[in-house]
Amino acid sequence: MSERIGIQIHLPEWLTAFERELPGNLVGAKSRMAVAISLSEQNVHHQTGGPFGALVVNEKTGEVVAMAVNRVEPQRCSSAHAEVLALTLAQQRLGTWNLADPSLPALQLVTSCEPCAMCAGAIPWSGVRSVLCGATKADAESAGFDEGDRPLEWVDQLRRRGIMVTTELLRDEAKLVLQQYAKRGQTIYQPSL
Amino acid sequence: MSERIGIQIHLPEWLTAFERELPGNLVGAKSRMAVAISLSEQNVHHQTGGPFGALVVNEKTGEVVAMAVNRVEPQRCSSAHAEVLALTLAQQRLGTWNLADPSLPALQLVTSCEPCAMCAGAIPWSGVRSVLCGATKADAESAGFDEGDRPLEWVDQLRRRGIMVTTELLRDEAKLVLQQYAKRGQTIYQPSL
Repeated sequence: MSERIGIQIHLPEWLTAFERELPGNLVGAKSRMAVAISLSEQNVHHQTGGPFGALVVNEKTGEVVAMAVNRVEPQRCSSAHAEVLALTLAQQRLGTWNLADPSLPALQLVTSCEPCAMCAGAIPWSGVRSVLCGATKADAESAGFDEGDRPLEWVDQLRRRGIMVTTELLRDEAKLVLQQYAKRGQTIYQPSL
Repeated sequence: MSERIGIQIHLPEWLTAFERELPGNLVGAKSRMAVAISLSEQNVHHQTGGPFGALVVNEKTGEVVAMAVNRVEPQRCSSAHAEVLALTLAQQRLGTWNLADPSLPALQLVTSCEPCAMCAGAIPWSGVRSVLCGATKADAESAGFDEGDRPLEWVDQLRRRGIMVTTELLRDEAKLVLQQYAKRGQTIYQPSL
């Protein structure tokens, strides 16, 4: 039998305990965002990737389906952004590429920073019904990150697809993690051609 | 020791033999595109995913670094588009998230169909220097696929980042695979909310 070609992305070891210690349900938008920010913070603290965290929750109950952090550098994968990994983990755990499957409850993506152009493009394919964002594109850029050529009207574009977006939730707290990361002089991983 | 959370995406088994049987170097843009189209065709033939194929090659010599096909349905992952998987495989094989690393030759992404909004957003993060595309957004849409809210000026946006894009290479051949897939009534995997 021939060897199978494949891709593996690992989340950091500390995430397993982090997930286990969470309360069962995250009630309210702010408590969900606090977890996303805490993920971004822990990822900086443990030096296991960039200052970004995301989770997928049951929109109504706040039950956590999956959570992830940025893994670009340690996993050598430029698309291993927190949002893409959280969506992928949720899909693999629920056994479907389509989180809008009628058998599932409405699901929500919660991210410590507004999605970049790639992640904004990934959201409609995932099947999530709503998105909560913390830090803004301007915050990410002022910390040295490039958000890509995301359409200016991205919130309206997602809304037209039936996906509600809330921005600037606990923005100051989310922004602080980006600033701390930048101050420490850690890698801003954008290829410069 | 706690269990590690992770993601696995497998490419189809036939891809190993396909890769082994390729000529060492793909000289010229059309021979590279012919391989991308052949990947899309084989993926439909084997029923191992959507009608899309992509590869990463050495821009100058045409040496193949990695190749992939769409794996959304079989791997239950809405972001498992051919382009993202080919870029990720190339990065894992070369041991870097940054294909523009000065130690590497210039690398090129070749895709059987123009990138969707997500994949167009992923290209600048990958470090490839140029992109060759076969079928157009209109071709994908006429076969029932949604390309997302990709900015109209995406080619210029990539060019401003130093990434040269060539479109409509062997367009008719690439389009034919999309049409054949649609005719067979195979899944068009876009979540409808």
